[in-house]
Amino acid sequence: MVQVFTGEGRGKTSAAIGSVIRALGHGLKVHIIFFMKGNFPFGEQKILSLLDNVSFTSYGSNEFVDPDNIKPPQKEGAQAGLRAAREALHSGKYDLIVLDEINVAVHWKLVDIQDVLGLIKEKPASVELILTGRDADPKLIEQADLVTEMRNQKHPFEKGIDARAGIEY
Amino acid sequence: MVQVFTGEGRGKTSAAIGSVIRALGHGLKVHIIFFMKGNFPFGEQKILSLLDNVSFTSYGSNEFVDPDNIKPPQKEGAQAGLRAAREALHSGKYDLIVLDEINVAVHWKLVDIQDVLGLIKEKPASVELILTGRDADPKLIEQADLVTEMRNQKHPFEKGIDARAGIEY
Repeated sequence: MVQVFTGEGRGKTSAAIGSVIRALGHGLKVHIIFFMKGNFPFGEQKILSLLDNVSFTSYGSNEFVDPDNIKPPQKEGAQAGLRAAREALHSGKYDLIVLDEINVAVHWKLVDIQDVLGLIKEKPASVELILTGRDADPKLIEQADLVTEMRNQKHPFEKGIDARAGIEY
Repeated sequence: MVQVFTGEGRGKTSAAIGSVIRALGHGLKVHIIFFMKGNFPFGEQKILSLLDNVSFTSYGSNEFVDPDNIKPPQKEGAQAGLRAAREALHSGKYDLIVLDEINVAVHWKLVDIQDVLGLIKEKPASVELILTGRDADPKLIEQADLVTEMRNQKHPFEKGIDARAGIEY
């Protein structure tokens, strides 16, 4: 099955990580590919490193990505992530693969939506795929089995509360 | 801060568990209270048991809860969860407390919304509180700082795919 967590609201990566924890608890094997460096969830990675049956790799540039001025290394990073995703998909080693923030990589044109749709098409039936990130492409939504939109009903930044380590990032 | 994950869509408990993993990665101390037995996330609990700085307790009856015919032990279970939440809140031991599925306990009248609002009112400023479950009470939404609604854009059960261990529960 192909699941998508999208929308402007909180909890997309968290829901993916929570799904990973659930899967691990049922003995499944998991691989996570993090696509957007600026958002790498270091706290989550620290804990995931302690657990068996889960591995992850991170791709993308350290720099801020300006969608109107993509730099070659930024695109190359995302493309390397895509290749890693394809390899993981066909490795036979994983029951669940998470492509974190890949929707943003697509939206910013670091990754072509057709390549993502290709991954879905060639996905072995036994592998569960979770894709996260706001601005999911309509073509992805069409191909996915389950799409959940995280919607802000109320957001504290409106009230001027700053982001805090361990809670927002 | 008080966060709520609600809505009909997937990922409410998963987003809470993902938030827990993030918090642990930043060295925070976490306690989780699971309110609705039918939905106890055993996979998640198995993995959480392996980690330091996180503890959890589960309350509620084993039986199906019929909101129109609440049995005393069902109500007593939820009430015990509420007492445990209050105790955890004032213990000074936790940076983050998750009350999983408490919204459903309220909606089914196992817990009075006024008691939940009381918890929020007496919450030490240093403690982060996450409440999950569909049908969050409007009064809770009013008092919360951040409310995220998980909305189904597309749901596979419509297509007749059964729930699978390790993925949906």
